[in-house]
Amino acid sequence: MGPLRIGVIGAGRIGKIHGENIARFIPQARLEGLTDIKLTAEQEAWARGLGARIVSQESGDLLADPAIDAVIICSSTDTHADLIIAAAKAGKQIFCEKPIDLSVPKVKAALEAAQKAGVKLQIGFNRRFDHNFRRIREYTLTGEIGQVQLVKITSRDPAPPSPAYVAVSGGIFIDMMIHDFDMARFQAGSEITEVYAAGAVLVDPEIGKAGDVDTAMVTLRFANGAIGVIDNSRKAVYGYDQRVEVFGSRGAAQAENDLPNTVKLYTEQAVIGEKPLYFFLERYKGAFVDEMVSFTEAVLQNKPVAVTGEDGLENMYAALAAGKSLKEKRPVLVDEVRV
Amino acid sequence: MGPLRIGVIGAGRIGKIHGENIARFIPQARLEGLTDIKLTAEQEAWARGLGARIVSQESGDLLADPAIDAVIICSSTDTHADLIIAAAKAGKQIFCEKPIDLSVPKVKAALEAAQKAGVKLQIGFNRRFDHNFRRIREYTLTGEIGQVQLVKITSRDPAPPSPAYVAVSGGIFIDMMIHDFDMARFQAGSEITEVYAAGAVLVDPEIGKAGDVDTAMVTLRFANGAIGVIDNSRKAVYGYDQRVEVFGSRGAAQAENDLPNTVKLYTEQAVIGEKPLYFFLERYKGAFVDEMVSFTEAVLQNKPVAVTGEDGLENMYAALAAGKSLKEKRPVLVDEVRV
Amino acid sequence: MGPLRIGVIGAGRIGKIHGENIARFIPQARLEGLTDIKLTAEQEAWARGLGARIVSQESGDLLADPAIDAVIICSSTDTHADLIIAAAKAGKQIFCEKPIDLSVPKVKAALEAAQKAGVKLQIGFNRRFDHNFRRIREYTLTGEIGQVQLVKITSRDPAPPSPAYVAVSGGIFIDMMIHDFDMARFQAGSEITEVYAAGAVLVDPEIGKAGDVDTAMVTLRFANGAIGVIDNSRKAVYGYDQRVEVFGSRGAAQAENDLPNTVKLYTEQAVIGEKPLYFFLERYKGAFVDEMVSFTEAVLQNKPVAVTGEDGLENMYAALAAGKSLKEKRPVLVDEVRV
Amino acid sequence: MGPLRIGVIGAGRIGKIHGENIARFIPQARLEGLTDIKLTAEQEAWARGLGARIVSQESGDLLADPAIDAVIICSSTDTHADLIIAAAKAGKQIFCEKPIDLSVPKVKAALEAAQKAGVKLQIGFNRRFDHNFRRIREYTLTGEIGQVQLVKITSRDPAPPSPAYVAVSGGIFIDMMIHDFDMARFQAGSEITEVYAAGAVLVDPEIGKAGDVDTAMVTLRFANGAIGVIDNSRKAVYGYDQRVEVFGSRGAAQAENDLPNTVKLYTEQAVIGEKPLYFFLERYKGAFVDEMVSFTEAVLQNKPVAVTGEDGLENMYAALAAGKSLKEKRPVLVDEVRV
Repeated sequence: MGPLRIGVIGAGRIGKIHGENIARFIPQARLEGLTDIKLTAEQEAWARGLGARIVSQESGDLLADPAIDAVIICSSTDTHADLIIAAAKAGKQIFCEKPIDLSVPKVKAALEAAQKAGVKLQIGFNRRFDHNFRRIREYTLTGEIGQVQLVKITSRDPAPPSPAYVAVSGGIFIDMMIHDFDMARFQAGSEITEVYAAGAVLVDPEIGKAGDVDTAMVTLRFANGAIGVIDNSRKAVYGYDQRVEVFGSRGAAQAENDLPNTVKLYTEQAVIGEKPLYFFLERYKGAFVDEMVSFTEAVLQNKPVAVTGEDGLENMYAALAAGKSLKEKRPVLVDEVRV
Repeated sequence: MGPLRIGVIGAGRIGKIHGENIARFIPQARLEGLTDIKLTAEQEAWARGLGARIVSQESGDLLADPAIDAVIICSSTDTHADLIIAAAKAGKQIFCEKPIDLSVPKVKAALEAAQKAGVKLQIGFNRRFDHNFRRIREYTLTGEIGQVQLVKITSRDPAPPSPAYVAVSGGIFIDMMIHDFDMARFQAGSEITEVYAAGAVLVDPEIGKAGDVDTAMVTLRFANGAIGVIDNSRKAVYGYDQRVEVFGSRGAAQAENDLPNTVKLYTEQAVIGEKPLYFFLERYKGAFVDEMVSFTEAVLQNKPVAVTGEDGLENMYAALAAGKSLKEKRPVLVDEVRV
Repeated sequence: MGPLRIGVIGAGRIGKIHGENIARFIPQARLEGLTDIKLTAEQEAWARGLGARIVSQESGDLLADPAIDAVIICSSTDTHADLIIAAAKAGKQIFCEKPIDLSVPKVKAALEAAQKAGVKLQIGFNRRFDHNFRRIREYTLTGEIGQVQLVKITSRDPAPPSPAYVAVSGGIFIDMMIHDFDMARFQAGSEITEVYAAGAVLVDPEIGKAGDVDTAMVTLRFANGAIGVIDNSRKAVYGYDQRVEVFGSRGAAQAENDLPNTVKLYTEQAVIGEKPLYFFLERYKGAFVDEMVSFTEAVLQNKPVAVTGEDGLENMYAALAAGKSLKEKRPVLVDEVRV
Repeated sequence: MGPLRIGVIGAGRIGKIHGENIARFIPQARLEGLTDIKLTAEQEAWARGLGARIVSQESGDLLADPAIDAVIICSSTDTHADLIIAAAKAGKQIFCEKPIDLSVPKVKAALEAAQKAGVKLQIGFNRRFDHNFRRIREYTLTGEIGQVQLVKITSRDPAPPSPAYVAVSGGIFIDMMIHDFDMARFQAGSEITEVYAAGAVLVDPEIGKAGDVDTAMVTLRFANGAIGVIDNSRKAVYGYDQRVEVFGSRGAAQAENDLPNTVKLYTEQAVIGEKPLYFFLERYKGAFVDEMVSFTEAVLQNKPVAVTGEDGLENMYAALAAGKSLKEKRPVLVDEVRV
C-alpha cells in the first residue's frame, strides 16, 4: 500500500508539529492537505512548503477529497466531536487530539460514529510513545517488574496557564492530569476503578478564583488491585517535571527527566547539572513522531490503534471522578461518573 | 558538665546499637549501665566490654542509681510507658524508642509524667537525623525551596515481617508508616490535619489474614496547606527504599537512596549499579549516632530535644487516622482520632 | 539571501546523512544536487525524493552548475583534495569530510586552492557541535572553569573495523583519534605542541599484523601549558564511549555518555541502566545537523567557518606526531612533523 | 588467639586515626600503647582514654614490652626504616605508613630486616581497602571485566601543600602519586614496566620554585600489556577527586566520588548536587579501618598481608621512574631505576 495521504485540520501549535512530522519524518505518510478556519498566509506558505496539495479554511475540502486517507484533528476542543463524526461519515481514518470533548455524551457519539463507519480512531495521548515511559512498560510486559503493585506519576508544568485559559479548560483534571490518567492506565495495564483527589491553590490565587486548583495529588485504585498516585503542579520553577515509577513484585522501574546535555560542572560552591527539558514540545518531541508513525502503521497494516477512543473516554471518566472527589471530599468510584 | 552517664534498658537489636554508639562514638556520653529482663551471658560480656558498671536484669537498678543521668528505653513497646513514668519519677532524662505505646491514654500519661518531673523526653524517630533528609530540611529552612507545597515519601522494606509479628504490631501505620508520618511532619514543618489511606494486600495473603495490609498509599493534608503522600510496601525485592522529595514555590529537593559503593559496571548487556543499602541498620547507621549525640547535647546543654513526646503523639494520631481511613474508606481528620 | 543551494558529492553513509539533514532540517538550505561515481537506482530515488534537481555520477555536473552555491564532499578520502581544488576553482563554498587527505602536501594544496579562490572551507569535525561537548566549551568560555589545566578524552568504538579496512585507514591516529585531537584542541583553546603515544594490540591480533594498534593512550601538551590525554580503543563491548572532561583553575566539567532512555530497573540482583547509544550515527545525530547549520550560516552570513582547513591540518600533524611517537617510543614535538 | 596487642608509634594525624580505629572498631585488636617523641598532655589523655597502658615518648618502651604484639609506625618518614629494623629485631609485627623511606637502600634494608626476623610488614596504602576501588577489583577478579586493557586514575587534592612542605616531600610522585601507582598496580594486577610523565606548574609558582610540579599526567605500561594513566593536581577547587576506571575485554567499571549526601536541589537556575567529600580523612574513613582489620587478621591468622613491603618498594620505583621521566623528557623503564 502506498504512503498514507493525510490531511491536518487545525494549524495551531500541535497541528504544526504533526504536519512537520508527517512531512519530514514519516516516509510512509504524506502531508496531503491542511485546513484552518483562520488560515494565515504564513500557515499556507508553511503547508505548501511541506508539499500540501490542499490548503484551505474548510475542513470539508479534506473530507470531500477521495485522495485523502486520513485526517489529524488539531482544531479547538469544542470542534473535535463534530469533526470525528463528519470524518467518519466521509470514511476517513481519524487521529484526534485530546480531549475528545468535555461532554461525555458527545464523546460517546463520536466514538459510535467512528465504530459504525468502521474507521480507525486514535487519540493523541502522546506520552505512551515516550522513550522513557515505553521502556518501563516493556519491563512490565517482559516480566522484570512482576505483578504491578504501585504506579507513581509526577507531572508538573513549568508555568501556569492564564486564569482566562483555566476558566474554559475544564479544570486541572481534564486539562492536565488527563495525560497522567492515561499514563497510569497504560503502566498499570488495568482500568482505574476509584480515585481520591486532594487539591489546593498554592501557585496562583487567580486560578482558585476561576474555580480550579493548581496543585493536586490523586490516589488511584486499579481493577487489578494495584494502587497509584499522580501529583500535578501548574508551576515547577525548574521546568517540566515528568517522571514515572512502577513498582512490582519482582522489581521496580523509574524514569527520570530528560536533560539537554549530560554535563556536570564542578565548582568551589557545588556540582551543577542541567534542568529538565523546558516543556512538552522539547520533552515529547520524539513521542509526537512515534505516535504518528504508530497511527500510520495501524492504518496501513490494518492493525488496532495504540490509543483508542475508549481510552479517551476512560481517561475522561477518571478526570470527572477526580473532579467529583475533590468537590465532595471523598473517594469516588469511576463507575459513579459513567453515563 | 561531665559526660552524660547513660543506662540502656533492653539489650535487643536497637538497644545494642545505642549502647555501642554511646560507648564508642559519643565522647560526651558514657555507657554506665545496661539492663535486660532476660539478660544473657553474651549480653553481659558485651556491656562490660563497653565499660558498663551496672549490668543486671532490673531496670530499677539504673533508676535507683544516682550516678545515672539518663536512660535509653529499648525494651518491648508494652513496657515503654511504664518505664517512662518510673524514670521520670526517678528524675532521669529519657530517650525512648518508638512507638511510645499503642494506647493514646498511656502515651499521654507518660508524657505528663515526664513533663511533671521536668525531665527531657526524646523519642527515637531517628530518620530526622539522616544525612539526606536533614539536607532537604536545611534547604527548606534556608529558603531554597520556598513555601512547601508537596511532600513525597517512599518507604519500603526489603522483606515482610512474619504474620505473627504483624498480628501484634499494631498494623502497618503504627508499625511502619509512623516513621514516615514523622518525616512528613518534619519536612512540611507543619502538622498533618487529614489523611486518606488506600491499602492492599499484595505481598503476602497471611498479612491480610492477620487483619493488616502490606501495601499502602496515604495522602496527607498539612495545616500550612501543603499536600503529601507516603507509599509503603512491606517488600521491595531490591532492598530498603527510602526516598524523600519536597517541592515548593522556589524549588524542589530530592534524596535518593544510599548505595554501598559508587561503582558502575558496563557490560555487553547493560550498565549495572549497586542496590540500595539493604536495611535500616546500614541505612540509618549514622542517624542512630546523631540522634544520640543530639539527645546527649540537649541534656548537657539544657536545650529542647529534637523529637519530643508530643511528636510521638502526633505521629500516632496520624497513624490512627490512617487506620480509620482505611477501614472507613474515607478521608479522616486527625482531630477525629484525638482523645 | 535565499536558501543555500547545496550539492552533495558521494552518497555513502555520511553523504546520506548530510543529504537528509539538508533537505529536512535546514530551512535555509536546499539539497539541489547529488552525485556518486557509482550511483545506484536506490540512491537516485532517495535524492529525487529529497528534491534534488541534479542527480548524476559526475561531480563535475555540480561544479559546472551556476545554481549550486556549495558542495559537501563525502566521497572517498583519496578524492577529497582534488575535489576541494576543483570546487574552489569553480567558486563553490566547500564542506569536506575528514580527513582532508593522508598526505600533508595534498592537504596544503587543497587549503591553498580554497584560500586563493576566496571560498569557505569547513572540515567535518562534527563533534565540536555535540550538545555535551559544546556545553563544556561554553563553560570554559564563560569563565566557570578558569584556566584550562587538564583535558581528558575517552573515545572508544563499539567494534573494531576489519583488518582490511585498517590496512588502508592510515592507522588509528589518522582514522580514529584525529577526531579526539580536534576535540582536545577545541576544548583546550590552544594548539597541541607535543604528544607521547603508548599503543598496544589488545583487541585483535589481525590489527597488529596490519601494522596498527587497536588501543592507544596519548599524552598531549598544549601551547597554553595545559596537559591532555586521549584514550582510544577499537572495541568497547558496552558500546560507543564518548566522554570529555576539562579541569581548570576554577572548576571542572564532565560530559557523560548519552543514553537511549533514563529508565533504571531495580531487581533483586542489581540496578540496571541503559548502555550508551550504540555508535556515531545515533550519538552525533544532532551534531551532524548542527555542523551543517553552522556551515550554511557561515556562507549565508559570510562569517568564518567553525572548523577550518587549518584545523584539519593541525589535527593531522597531531596524528602524524602520535604515529611517530609510537614508532620511536619517545615524546614528539608536533613541529617535528610539520612540513 | 587473643586480641592483637598493638602499640602505635607517632601520635600525629594519621597515628590518631589508627589509634582510634584500633580502640573503637576492631574487636580483635587492642590499643595497648602509644608513643610520640614530643608527647603532649593532650595526646597522653587521649591515649589513656582509649585504654592504652604504655604511653611515653620512647618507641623503645613498646619494642621492649613482651605484651606488645605489633607496632603501627606513624612517625615522620625519615624514622620509618630505622623503626622497622628495630621492631623487626624485637620480633614485633609491623604496619608502617607510606612511604617507607625516600632512599631505596634504606627501604631495602628495612624489608630485609623484616624478612629476616620473620615478622609481617604491611605498608599503609589504604586506598586498596576503599569500598569503591575494591569493588572494581572484585569485578576484575570475578571476570566481569575480562582482560584488563586500560586503567585510568584521577587523583586530585583540594588544596596544595605549603612550598615548605613540598621542598622536603620528595616531590609529587613520591608524596602524592605514589598512592596512585599502588592503585594502578592493584587494579591492573600487574607490575608497572614503563612510565612517561608530563608535568607542569599550573597551581602555584612557588611549588615550581621548590623544584616540583603541581600538575602531572603519567602514562603507564604494565607487564601484562595493559596501559594506564594517572592524573594528579594539587588543587581541585571542588574538593578531593578520587576516581578509578578499569576497562577490559569484557566490560568496564567506573568508580565515582563519594558524596556527603544524595540530595539534589532543583531551582530556577540549575540542578545542584553535593561536592565530593572534602579530603582523605572523610573519603577514606572506612578504608583506614579496613586496612587495620586486614593487618590484624593477617597477623592473628598468619596470612600474608594485603600490601607488602615489596609493594612499597615497587610503588617507589614507579615514582622514581616518573621523576626521571619528567626530568629527562622521555619514557623511562622502571628497571632503569631499580638498584
